[in-house]
Amino acid sequence: MQSGTERTESGGLASFACMLADLARPMALEHFRQNIAVEQKADLSPVTYADRAIEAAMRALIEKTYPDHGILGEEHGTSNIDSARVWVLDPIDGTKSFVTGMPTFGTLIALLEDGRPTLGVISIPPTGELWIGRDGEATLFDSVACHTSTCTKLADALVYTTSPDNFDVAGLKAFDRVSSQAAMRRYGGDCYSYGLLASGHIDAVIEMNLQPYDFMALVPVTEGAGGVITDWQGGRLHLGSDGHVVAAATPELHAEILEALYA
Amino acid sequence: MQSGTERTESGGLASFACMLADLARPMALEHFRQNIAVEQKADLSPVTYADRAIEAAMRALIEKTYPDHGILGEEHGTSNIDSARVWVLDPIDGTKSFVTGMPTFGTLIALLEDGRPTLGVISIPPTGELWIGRDGEATLFDSVACHTSTCTKLADALVYTTSPDNFDVAGLKAFDRVSSQAAMRRYGGDCYSYGLLASGHIDAVIEMNLQPYDFMALVPVTEGAGGVITDWQGGRLHLGSDGHVVAAATPELHAEILEALYA
Repeated sequence: MQSGTERTESGGLASFACMLADLARPMALEHFRQNIAVEQKADLSPVTYADRAIEAAMRALIEKTYPDHGILGEEHGTSNIDSARVWVLDPIDGTKSFVTGMPTFGTLIALLEDGRPTLGVISIPPTGELWIGRDGEATLFDSVACHTSTCTKLADALVYTTSPDNFDVAGLKAFDRVSSQAAMRRYGGDCYSYGLLASGHIDAVIEMNLQPYDFMALVPVTEGAGGVITDWQGGRLHLGSDGHVVAAATPELHAEILEALYA
Repeated sequence: MQSGTERTESGGLASFACMLADLARPMALEHFRQNIAVEQKADLSPVTYADRAIEAAMRALIEKTYPDHGILGEEHGTSNIDSARVWVLDPIDGTKSFVTGMPTFGTLIALLEDGRPTLGVISIPPTGELWIGRDGEATLFDSVACHTSTCTKLADALVYTTSPDNFDVAGLKAFDRVSSQAAMRRYGGDCYSYGLLASGHIDAVIEMNLQPYDFMALVPVTEGAGGVITDWQGGRLHLGSDGHVVAAATPELHAEILEALYA
Protein backbone atom coordinates (compact mmCIF):
# COMPACT_ATOMS: atom_id res chain seq x y z
CA MET A 1 0.00 0.00 0.00
CA GLN A 2 1.51 3.27 -1.11
CA SER A 3 0.51 6.64 0.24
CA GLY A 4 -1.52 9.06 -1.85
CA THR A 5 1.36 11.25 -2.88
CA GLU A 6 3.47 8.32 -4.07
CA ARG A 7 0.74 7.11 -6.40
CA THR A 8 0.53 10.11 -8.70
CA GLU A 9 2.82 12.90 -9.71
CA SER A 10 0.04 15.15 -10.92
CA GLY A 11 -0.50 16.25 -7.36
CA GLY A 12 -3.37 18.50 -6.43
CA LEU A 13 -6.78 16.98 -6.75
CA ALA A 14 -5.59 13.50 -7.74
CA SER A 15 -3.31 13.32 -4.72
CA PHE A 16 -6.13 14.59 -2.58
CA ALA A 17 -8.45 11.86 -3.88
CA CYS A 18 -5.84 9.27 -2.90
CA MET A 19 -5.60 10.88 0.53
CA LEU A 20 -9.35 10.37 0.89
CA ALA A 21 -8.88 6.68 -0.04
CA ASP A 22 -6.06 6.37 2.48
CA LEU A 23 -8.30 7.89 5.12
CA ALA A 24 -11.13 5.48 4.34
CA ARG A 25 -9.08 2.29 4.20
CA PRO A 26 -8.17 1.69 7.87
CA MET A 27 -11.65 2.77 8.93
CA ALA A 28 -13.23 0.22 6.59
CA LEU A 29 -10.88 -2.53 7.74
CA GLU A 30 -11.61 -1.73 11.38
CA HIS A 31 -15.23 -2.72 10.80
CA PHE A 32 -14.55 -5.61 8.39
CA ARG A 33 -14.94 -9.23 9.55
CA GLN A 34 -15.90 -8.26 13.06
CA ASN A 35 -18.02 -10.74 14.96
CA ILE A 36 -21.44 -9.25 14.78
CA ALA A 37 -24.72 -10.81 15.84
CA VAL A 38 -26.80 -12.36 13.08
CA GLU A 39 -29.67 -9.93 13.44
CA GLN A 40 -27.25 -7.04 13.01
CA LYS A 41 -25.60 -8.54 9.94
CA ALA A 42 -28.93 -9.23 8.29
CA ASP A 43 -30.19 -5.66 8.44
CA LEU A 44 -26.84 -4.32 7.18
CA SER A 45 -26.40 -2.10 10.22
CA PRO A 46 -22.63 -2.76 10.50
CA VAL A 47 -21.99 -1.65 6.97
CA THR A 48 -24.27 1.33 7.45
CA TYR A 49 -22.33 2.28 10.56
CA ALA A 50 -18.98 1.99 8.79
CA ASP A 51 -20.35 3.76 5.72
CA ARG A 52 -21.50 6.72 7.78
CA ALA A 53 -18.33 7.02 9.82
CA ILE A 54 -16.07 6.87 6.76
CA GLU A 55 -18.16 9.30 4.75
CA ALA A 56 -18.24 11.77 7.64
CA ALA A 57 -14.43 11.65 7.87
CA MET A 58 -14.00 12.13 4.11
CA ARG A 59 -16.49 15.01 4.07
CA ALA A 60 -14.69 16.72 6.94
CA LEU A 61 -11.38 16.54 5.07
CA ILE A 62 -12.97 17.88 1.87
CA GLU A 63 -14.69 20.73 3.72
CA LYS A 64 -11.46 21.68 5.46
CA THR A 65 -9.30 21.50 2.33
CA TYR A 66 -11.71 22.73 -0.34
CA PRO A 67 -14.50 24.59 1.45
CA ASP A 68 -16.02 25.79 -1.84
CA HIS A 69 -16.39 22.26 -3.30
CA GLY A 70 -19.68 20.40 -3.25
CA ILE A 71 -20.22 16.86 -1.91
CA LEU A 72 -22.63 14.08 -2.83
CA GLY A 73 -22.37 11.07 -0.54
CA GLU A 74 -24.32 7.85 -0.19
CA GLU A 75 -25.08 8.30 3.48
CA HIS A 76 -25.10 12.01 4.26
CA GLY A 77 -26.68 13.45 1.11
CA THR A 78 -25.57 16.59 -0.71
CA SER A 79 -23.92 19.80 0.32
CA ASN A 80 -23.00 22.76 -1.87
CA ILE A 81 -24.11 20.67 -4.86
CA ASP A 82 -24.20 23.66 -7.26
CA SER A 83 -20.46 24.16 -6.95
CA ALA A 84 -18.40 23.74 -10.15
CA ARG A 85 -16.50 20.96 -8.40
CA VAL A 86 -18.42 18.23 -6.61
CA TRP A 87 -16.99 15.15 -4.87
CA VAL A 88 -19.06 11.99 -5.15
CA LEU A 89 -18.37 9.45 -2.40
CA ASP A 90 -19.27 5.82 -1.78
CA PRO A 91 -17.40 4.80 1.37
CA ILE A 92 -18.25 1.10 0.96
CA ASP A 93 -19.31 -0.15 -2.46
CA GLY A 94 -20.23 -3.82 -2.29
CA THR A 95 -22.15 -3.88 0.97
CA LYS A 96 -22.97 -7.59 0.60
CA SER A 97 -19.27 -8.37 0.18
CA PHE A 98 -18.36 -6.20 3.16
CA VAL A 99 -20.92 -7.73 5.47
CA THR A 100 -20.01 -11.31 4.49
CA GLY A 101 -16.24 -10.97 4.84
CA MET A 102 -15.52 -11.06 1.10
CA PRO A 103 -12.37 -8.96 0.55
CA THR A 104 -13.47 -7.35 -2.72
CA PHE A 105 -15.52 -4.37 -1.57
CA GLY A 106 -14.26 -0.90 -2.40
CA THR A 107 -14.29 2.80 -1.67
CA LEU A 108 -15.29 4.98 -4.61
CA ILE A 109 -14.28 8.61 -4.97
CA ALA A 110 -15.13 10.80 -7.96
CA LEU A 111 -14.68 14.46 -8.74
CA LEU A 112 -17.21 16.11 -11.03
CA GLU A 113 -16.22 19.30 -12.80
CA ASP A 114 -19.28 21.08 -14.16
CA GLY A 115 -21.13 17.80 -13.82
CA ARG A 116 -18.57 15.70 -15.69
CA PRO A 117 -16.49 13.08 -13.82
CA THR A 118 -12.86 14.08 -14.42
CA LEU A 119 -11.23 12.06 -11.65
CA GLY A 120 -12.12 8.66 -10.24
CA VAL A 121 -10.62 6.34 -7.64
CA ILE A 122 -11.46 2.68 -6.96
CA SER A 123 -9.74 1.67 -3.72
CA ILE A 124 -9.99 -1.89 -2.39
CA PRO A 125 -9.25 -1.70 1.34
CA PRO A 126 -8.62 -5.41 2.08
CA THR A 127 -6.08 -5.85 -0.72
CA GLY A 128 -4.67 -2.33 -0.79
CA GLU A 129 -5.21 -2.14 -4.55
CA LEU A 130 -6.05 1.24 -6.08
CA TRP A 131 -7.08 2.37 -9.56
CA ILE A 132 -7.07 6.09 -10.37
CA GLY A 133 -8.39 7.58 -13.58
CA ARG A 134 -7.90 11.23 -14.57
CA ASP A 135 -9.23 13.19 -17.49
CA GLY A 136 -6.89 12.82 -20.47
CA GLU A 137 -4.35 10.66 -18.63
CA ALA A 138 -3.74 6.92 -18.48
CA THR A 139 -5.46 5.13 -15.64
CA LEU A 140 -3.00 3.92 -13.02
CA PHE A 141 -3.25 0.64 -11.14
CA ASP A 142 -1.01 0.75 -8.09
CA SER A 143 0.95 3.60 -9.78
CA VAL A 144 1.45 1.82 -13.12
CA ALA A 145 -0.51 2.63 -16.28
CA CYS A 146 -3.05 -0.06 -17.09
CA HIS A 147 -5.09 -0.76 -20.19
CA THR A 148 -8.25 -2.59 -21.09
CA SER A 149 -8.03 -5.73 -23.21
CA THR A 150 -8.16 -5.75 -27.01
CA CYS A 151 -11.35 -7.82 -27.09
CA THR A 152 -13.67 -6.59 -29.85
CA LYS A 153 -16.20 -9.44 -30.06
CA LEU A 154 -18.88 -10.49 -27.63
CA ALA A 155 -18.25 -14.14 -28.47
CA ASP A 156 -14.72 -13.75 -27.05
CA ALA A 157 -15.67 -11.61 -24.07
CA LEU A 158 -15.46 -12.37 -20.36
CA VAL A 159 -18.48 -10.58 -18.89
CA TYR A 160 -19.20 -9.69 -15.26
CA THR A 161 -22.23 -8.50 -13.39
CA THR A 162 -22.68 -8.22 -9.64
CA SER A 163 -25.95 -10.14 -9.24
CA PRO A 164 -28.95 -11.23 -11.29
CA ASP A 165 -30.98 -9.83 -8.38
CA ASN A 166 -30.01 -6.28 -9.32
CA PHE A 167 -31.91 -6.38 -12.65
CA ASP A 168 -35.60 -5.90 -13.29
CA VAL A 169 -37.37 -8.62 -15.29
CA ALA A 170 -36.80 -7.09 -18.72
CA GLY A 171 -33.24 -6.14 -17.81
CA LEU A 172 -32.37 -9.63 -16.66
CA LYS A 173 -33.76 -11.03 -19.89
CA ALA A 174 -31.59 -8.61 -21.85
CA PHE A 175 -28.52 -9.36 -19.75
CA ASP A 176 -29.12 -13.06 -20.14
CA ARG A 177 -29.46 -12.74 -23.92
CA VAL A 178 -26.20 -10.76 -24.16
CA SER A 179 -24.11 -12.68 -21.66
CA SER A 180 -25.15 -16.08 -23.00
CA GLN A 181 -23.45 -15.06 -26.27
CA ALA A 182 -20.23 -14.23 -24.40
CA ALA A 183 -17.31 -16.58 -23.85
CA MET A 184 -17.95 -16.51 -20.10
CA ARG A 185 -20.06 -14.73 -17.53
CA ARG A 186 -19.40 -14.46 -13.82
CA TYR A 187 -21.41 -13.00 -10.96
CA GLY A 188 -20.17 -11.03 -7.96
CA GLY A 189 -17.81 -8.11 -8.15
CA ASP A 190 -19.27 -4.67 -7.49
CA CYS A 191 -16.66 -1.98 -8.21
CA TYR A 192 -13.86 -4.57 -8.30
CA SER A 193 -15.20 -5.67 -11.69
CA TYR A 194 -14.37 -2.27 -13.20
CA GLY A 195 -10.83 -2.48 -11.85
CA LEU A 196 -10.45 -5.89 -13.48
CA LEU A 197 -11.81 -4.35 -16.70
CA ALA A 198 -9.34 -1.44 -16.55
CA SER A 199 -6.48 -3.88 -16.03
CA GLY A 200 -7.50 -6.05 -19.00
CA HIS A 201 -8.52 -9.16 -17.03
CA ILE A 202 -12.18 -9.04 -18.07
CA ASP A 203 -13.80 -7.48 -21.13
CA ALA A 204 -17.17 -6.08 -20.10
CA VAL A 205 -19.43 -5.28 -17.16
CA ILE A 206 -23.20 -4.93 -17.56
CA GLU A 207 -25.29 -3.64 -14.66
CA MET A 208 -28.60 -2.09 -13.80
CA ASN A 209 -29.87 0.33 -11.18
CA LEU A 210 -26.56 1.74 -9.97
CA GLN A 211 -26.57 5.06 -8.11
CA PRO A 212 -24.38 8.04 -9.06
CA TYR A 213 -22.03 7.29 -6.13
CA ASP A 214 -21.70 3.74 -7.54
CA PHE A 215 -20.83 4.69 -11.11
CA MET A 216 -19.25 8.17 -11.23
CA ALA A 217 -15.74 7.04 -10.16
CA LEU A 218 -15.86 4.22 -12.72
CA VAL A 219 -16.03 6.63 -15.67
CA PRO A 220 -12.52 8.17 -15.53
CA VAL A 221 -11.02 4.79 -14.50
CA THR A 222 -12.60 3.00 -17.47
CA GLU A 223 -12.03 5.73 -20.05
CA GLY A 224 -8.44 6.40 -18.98
CA ALA A 225 -7.69 2.70 -19.49
CA GLY A 226 -9.03 2.78 -23.04
CA GLY A 227 -12.50 1.43 -22.36
CA VAL A 228 -15.97 2.77 -23.02
CA ILE A 229 -18.61 3.26 -20.32
CA THR A 230 -22.13 4.57 -20.93
CA ASP A 231 -25.73 3.93 -20.04
CA TRP A 232 -27.63 1.21 -21.95
CA GLN A 233 -28.56 3.73 -24.67
CA GLY A 234 -24.94 4.72 -25.22
CA GLY A 235 -25.33 8.04 -23.43
CA ARG A 236 -22.70 9.53 -21.14
CA LEU A 237 -23.25 8.85 -17.46
CA HIS A 238 -24.32 11.90 -15.46
CA LEU A 239 -25.99 12.63 -12.13
CA GLY A 240 -29.43 12.10 -13.65
CA SER A 241 -28.59 8.80 -15.38
CA ASP A 242 -30.88 5.84 -14.76
CA GLY A 243 -27.89 3.85 -13.49
CA HIS A 244 -27.99 1.16 -16.17
CA VAL A 245 -24.31 0.78 -17.08
CA VAL A 246 -22.38 -0.94 -19.88
CA ALA A 247 -18.59 -0.84 -19.67
CA ALA A 248 -16.46 -2.53 -22.30
CA ALA A 249 -12.81 -2.92 -23.21
CA THR A 250 -13.15 -1.52 -26.75
CA PRO A 251 -15.62 0.64 -28.72
CA GLU A 252 -16.39 -2.35 -30.98
CA LEU A 253 -17.32 -4.61 -28.08
CA HIS A 254 -19.30 -1.83 -26.44
CA ALA A 255 -21.32 -1.26 -29.63
CA GLU A 256 -22.02 -4.98 -30.04
CA ILE A 257 -23.26 -5.24 -26.45
CA LEU A 258 -25.53 -2.19 -26.78
CA GLU A 259 -27.04 -3.64 -29.94
CA ALA A 260 -27.51 -7.08 -28.37
CA LEU A 261 -29.18 -5.60 -25.27
CA TYR A 262 -32.06 -4.40 -27.45
CA ALA A 263 -32.07 -7.20 -30.04
CA MET B 1 1.80 -16.35 4.85
CA GLN B 2 3.13 -18.94 7.26
CA SER B 3 4.85 -22.13 6.22
CA GLY B 4 3.12 -25.47 6.57
CA THR B 5 4.87 -26.51 9.74
CA GLU B 6 4.05 -23.27 11.52
CA ARG B 7 0.35 -23.69 10.85
CA THR B 8 -0.26 -26.90 12.75
CA GLU B 9 1.39 -28.70 15.59
CA SER B 10 -0.18 -32.04 14.81
CA GLY B 11 2.53 -32.60 12.24
CA GLY B 12 2.43 -35.60 9.97
CA LEU B 13 -0.33 -35.61 7.40
CA ALA B 14 -1.71 -32.17 8.32
CA SER B 15 1.71 -30.59 7.94
CA PHE B 16 2.16 -32.43 4.71
CA ALA B 17 -1.17 -31.10 3.38
CA CYS B 18 0.02 -27.57 4.17
CA MET B 19 3.28 -28.31 2.37
CA LEU B 20 1.23 -29.23 -0.69
CA ALA B 21 -0.61 -25.90 -0.40
CA ASP B 22 2.70 -24.05 -0.06
CA LEU B 23 3.95 -25.82 -3.17
CA ALA B 24 0.84 -24.88 -5.15
CA ARG B 25 0.67 -21.23 -4.13
CA PRO B 26 3.62 -19.67 -6.01
CA MET B 27 2.85 -21.81 -9.05
CA ALA B 28 -0.74 -20.54 -9.11
CA LEU B 29 0.36 -16.93 -8.66
CA GLU B 30 2.91 -17.29 -11.45
CA HIS B 31 0.06 -17.89 -13.89
CA PHE B 32 -2.43 -15.45 -12.32
CA ARG B 33 -3.20 -12.12 -14.04
CA GLN B 34 -0.80 -12.74 -16.87
CA ASN B 35 -1.57 -10.98 -20.11
CA ILE B 36 -3.06 -13.68 -22.20
CA ALA B 37 -4.77 -13.33 -25.58
CA VAL B 38 -8.56 -13.27 -25.54
CA GLU B 39 -8.95 -16.52 -27.43
CA GLN B 40 -6.78 -18.26 -24.87
CA LYS B 41 -8.67 -16.85 -21.92
CA ALA B 42 -12.02 -17.79 -23.36
CA ASP B 43 -11.24 -21.48 -23.73
CA LEU B 44 -9.76 -21.62 -20.23
CA SER B 45 -6.43 -22.90 -21.52
CA PRO B 46 -4.35 -20.79 -19.09
CA VAL B 47 -6.14 -22.18 -16.09
CA THR B 48 -5.90 -25.69 -17.52
CA TYR B 49 -2.17 -25.23 -18.00
CA ALA B 50 -1.68 -23.97 -14.45
CA ASP B 51 -4.01 -26.66 -13.09
CA ARG B 52 -2.00 -29.41 -14.76
CA ALA B 53 1.40 -28.09 -13.73
CA ILE B 54 0.38 -27.62 -10.10
CA GLU B 55 -1.32 -30.99 -9.85
CA ALA B 56 1.70 -32.73 -11.37
CA ALA B 57 3.97 -31.10 -8.78
CA MET B 58 1.67 -32.05 -5.89
CA ARG B 59 1.34 -35.62 -7.17
CA ALA B 60 5.11 -35.96 -7.44
CA LEU B 61 5.55 -34.84 -3.82
CA ILE B 62 2.84 -37.25 -2.63
CA GLU B 63 4.32 -40.15 -4.58
CA LYS B 64 7.77 -39.44 -3.22
CA THR B 65 6.64 -39.02 0.40
CA TYR B 66 3.80 -41.54 0.62
CA PRO B 67 4.26 -44.00 -2.26
CA ASP B 68 1.47 -46.24 -0.98
CA HIS B 69 -1.17 -43.47 -0.93
CA GLY B 70 -3.69 -43.05 -3.71
CA ILE B 71 -4.42 -39.83 -5.60
CA LEU B 72 -7.52 -38.41 -7.27
CA GLY B 73 -6.88 -35.17 -9.13
CA GLU B 74 -8.97 -32.95 -11.37
CA GLU B 75 -6.54 -33.00 -14.27
CA HIS B 76 -4.53 -36.21 -14.11
CA GLY B 77 -7.17 -38.69 -12.91
CA THR B 78 -6.65 -41.43 -10.37
CA SER B 79 -3.73 -43.53 -9.24
CA ASN B 80 -3.65 -46.24 -6.59
CA ILE B 81 -7.27 -45.32 -5.82
CA ASP B 82 -7.93 -48.49 -3.77
CA SER B 83 -5.39 -47.43 -1.15
CA ALA B 84 -6.72 -46.83 2.40
CA ARG B 85 -5.45 -43.27 2.12
CA VAL B 86 -6.28 -41.22 -0.95
CA TRP B 87 -5.41 -37.56 -1.61
CA VAL B 88 -8.02 -35.55 -3.51
CA LEU B 89 -6.61 -32.50 -5.27
CA ASP B 90 -8.08 -29.46 -7.00
CA PRO B 91 -5.12 -27.23 -7.88
CA ILE B 92 -7.33 -24.30 -8.91
CA ASP B 93 -10.91 -24.21 -7.66
CA GLY B 94 -12.73 -21.21 -9.10
CA THR B 95 -11.46 -21.30 -12.65
CA LYS B 96 -13.63 -18.35 -13.68
CA SER B 97 -12.16 -16.30 -10.84
CA PHE B 98 -8.63 -17.35 -11.75
CA VAL B 99 -8.98 -16.54 -15.44
CA THR B 100 -10.56 -13.13 -14.77
CA GLY B 101 -8.06 -11.93 -12.19
CA MET B 102 -10.41 -12.23 -9.21
CA PRO B 103 -8.24 -13.01 -6.16
CA THR B 104 -10.61 -15.46 -4.52
CA PHE B 105 -9.76 -18.76 -6.23
CA GLY B 106 -8.31 -21.55 -4.14
CA THR B 107 -6.35 -24.77 -3.98
CA LEU B 108 -8.22 -27.67 -2.38
CA ILE B 109 -6.50 -30.62 -0.75
CA ALA B 110 -8.30 -33.47 1.00
CA LEU B 111 -7.21 -36.75 2.50
CA LEU B 112 -9.65 -39.64 2.46
CA GLU B 113 -9.15 -42.47 4.93
CA ASP B 114 -11.17 -45.51 3.93
CA GLY B 115 -13.24 -43.19 1.75
CA ARG B 116 -13.98 -40.64 4.47
CA PRO B 117 -12.47 -37.13 4.29
CA THR B 118 -10.46 -36.73 7.52
CA LEU B 119 -8.31 -33.77 6.51
CA GLY B 120 -9.11 -30.79 4.31
CA VAL B 121 -7.28 -27.63 3.27
CA ILE B 122 -8.66 -24.54 1.55
CA SER B 123 -5.74 -22.36 0.49
CA ILE B 124 -6.29 -18.98 -1.21
CA PRO B 125 -3.06 -18.21 -3.09
CA PRO B 126 -3.62 -14.48 -3.80
CA THR B 127 -4.40 -13.59 -0.18
CA GLY B 128 -2.28 -16.26 1.53
CA GLU B 129 -5.25 -17.32 3.65
CA LEU B 130 -5.53 -20.99 4.65
CA TRP B 131 -8.20 -23.02 6.41
CA ILE B 132 -7.35 -26.53 7.61
CA GLY B 133 -9.85 -28.99 9.05
CA ARG B 134 -8.90 -32.26 10.71
CA ASP B 135 -11.02 -35.08 12.02
CA GLY B 136 -12.01 -34.37 15.65
CA GLU B 137 -10.06 -31.11 15.87
CA ALA B 138 -11.05 -27.47 15.55
CA THR B 139 -10.66 -26.00 12.09
CA LEU B 140 -7.83 -23.48 11.95
CA PHE B 141 -7.87 -20.27 9.92
CA ASP B 142 -4.34 -18.94 9.58
CA SER B 143 -3.37 -21.06 12.62
CA VAL B 144 -6.20 -19.87 14.86
CA ALA B 145 -9.30 -21.94 15.68
CA CYS B 146 -12.37 -20.64 13.88
CA HIS B 147 -16.06 -21.36 14.32
CA THR B 148 -19.21 -21.09 12.26
CA SER B 149 -21.86 -18.55 13.26
CA THR B 150 -24.70 -19.27 15.67
CA CYS B 151 -27.37 -18.66 13.02
CA THR B 152 -30.21 -21.16 13.38
CA LYS B 153 -32.88 -19.60 11.15
CA LEU B 154 -33.04 -19.26 7.40
CA ALA B 155 -34.72 -15.86 7.78
CA ASP B 156 -31.54 -14.60 9.48
CA ALA B 157 -29.07 -16.37 7.20
CA LEU B 158 -26.52 -14.91 4.76
CA VAL B 159 -26.47 -17.43 1.91
CA TYR B 160 -23.89 -17.87 -0.86
CA THR B 161 -23.77 -19.78 -4.09
CA THR B 162 -21.18 -19.52 -6.84
CA SER B 163 -23.48 -18.99 -9.82
CA PRO B 164 -27.09 -19.55 -10.87
CA ASP B 165 -25.57 -21.06 -14.02
CA ASN B 166 -24.33 -24.08 -12.03
CA PHE B 167 -27.86 -25.31 -11.24
CA ASP B 168 -30.22 -27.30 -13.44
CA VAL B 169 -33.73 -25.89 -13.90
CA ALA B 170 -35.33 -27.67 -10.95
CA GLY B 171 -32.28 -26.99 -8.77
CA LEU B 172 -32.31 -23.28 -9.53
CA LYS B 173 -36.00 -23.14 -8.66
CA ALA B 174 -35.27 -24.85 -5.34
CA PHE B 175 -32.29 -22.60 -4.63
CA ASP B 176 -34.35 -19.54 -5.46
CA ARG B 177 -37.16 -20.66 -3.17
CA VAL B 178 -34.75 -21.23 -0.28
CA SER B 179 -32.49 -18.23 -0.74
CA SER B 180 -35.36 -15.80 -1.24
CA GLN B 181 -36.39 -16.66 2.35
CA ALA B 182 -32.89 -15.82 3.61
CA ALA B 183 -31.77 -12.46 4.96
CA MET B 184 -29.35 -12.10 2.03
CA ARG B 185 -27.98 -14.06 -0.90
CA ARG B 186 -24.81 -13.36 -2.82
CA TYR B 187 -23.28 -14.95 -5.90
CA GLY B 188 -19.62 -15.72 -6.62
CA GLY B 189 -17.30 -17.46 -4.24
CA ASP B 190 -16.31 -21.03 -5.11
CA CYS B 191 -14.33 -22.58 -2.25
CA TYR B 192 -13.82 -19.17 -0.64
CA SER B 193 -17.48 -19.30 0.44
CA TYR B 194 -16.79 -22.32 2.65
CA GLY B 195 -13.89 -20.53 4.30
CA LEU B 196 -16.18 -17.59 5.05
CA LEU B 197 -18.70 -20.08 6.46
CA ALA B 198 -16.07 -21.74 8.68
CA SER B 199 -15.03 -18.32 10.00
CA GLY B 200 -18.61 -17.31 10.81
CA HIS B 201 -18.96 -14.54 8.21
CA ILE B 202 -21.73 -16.24 6.25
CA ASP B 203 -24.26 -18.83 7.37
CA ALA B 204 -24.87 -21.22 4.47
CA VAL B 205 -23.69 -22.28 1.03
CA ILE B 206 -25.98 -24.13 -1.39
CA GLU B 207 -24.53 -25.57 -4.58
CA MET B 208 -25.17 -28.11 -7.30
CA ASN B 209 -23.03 -30.32 -9.51
CA LEU B 210 -19.74 -30.09 -7.64
CA GLN B 211 -17.11 -32.74 -8.28
CA PRO B 212 -15.39 -34.77 -5.51
CA TYR B 213 -12.23 -32.66 -5.88
CA ASP B 214 -14.46 -29.57 -5.35
CA PHE B 215 -16.19 -30.74 -2.17
CA MET B 216 -14.04 -33.29 -0.31
CA ALA B 217 -11.73 -30.72 1.32
CA LEU B 218 -14.74 -28.68 2.42
CA VAL B 219 -16.07 -31.46 4.67
CA PRO B 220 -13.38 -31.46 7.42
CA VAL B 221 -13.10 -27.64 7.23
CA THR B 222 -16.85 -27.17 7.71
CA GLU B 223 -17.35 -29.88 10.33
CA GLY B 224 -14.27 -28.91 12.35
CA ALA B 225 -15.66 -25.37 12.57
CA GLY B 226 -18.98 -26.61 13.96
CA GLY B 227 -20.96 -26.59 10.73
CA VAL B 228 -22.87 -29.28 8.88
CA ILE B 229 -22.22 -30.25 5.27
CA THR B 230 -24.13 -32.92 3.33
CA ASP B 231 -25.77 -33.58 0.00
CA TRP B 232 -29.28 -32.21 -0.63
CA GLN B 233 -30.80 -35.34 0.95
CA GLY B 234 -28.79 -34.93 4.14
CA GLY B 235 -26.41 -37.76 3.26
CA ARG B 236 -22.69 -37.65 3.94
CA LEU B 237 -20.57 -36.58 1.00
CA HIS B 238 -18.53 -39.39 -0.56
CA LEU B 239 -16.75 -40.09 -3.85
CA GLY B 240 -20.00 -41.25 -5.45
CA SER B 241 -22.10 -38.24 -4.29
CA ASP B 242 -24.09 -36.33 -6.90
CA GLY B 243 -22.25 -33.15 -5.92
CA HIS B 244 -25.28 -31.24 -4.70
CA VAL B 245 -24.04 -29.65 -1.49
CA VAL B 246 -25.64 -27.85 1.45
CA ALA B 247 -23.32 -26.43 4.09
CA ALA B 248 -24.69 -24.55 7.09
CA ALA B 249 -23.45 -22.95 10.28
CA THR B 250 -25.67 -24.99 12.63
CA PRO B 251 -27.67 -28.25 12.51
CA GLU B 252 -30.91 -26.27 12.90
CA LEU B 253 -30.21 -24.05 9.91
CA HIS B 254 -29.04 -27.04 7.87
CA ALA B 255 -32.28 -28.92 8.62
CA GLU B 256 -34.41 -25.90 7.70
CA ILE B 257 -32.60 -25.50 4.37
CA LEU B 258 -32.94 -29.19 3.48
CA GLU B 259 -36.65 -29.04 4.19
CA ALA B 260 -37.12 -25.82 2.21
CA LEU B 261 -35.22 -27.25 -0.79
CA TYR B 262 -37.96 -29.84 -1.24
CA ALA B 263 -40.93 -27.80 -0.02
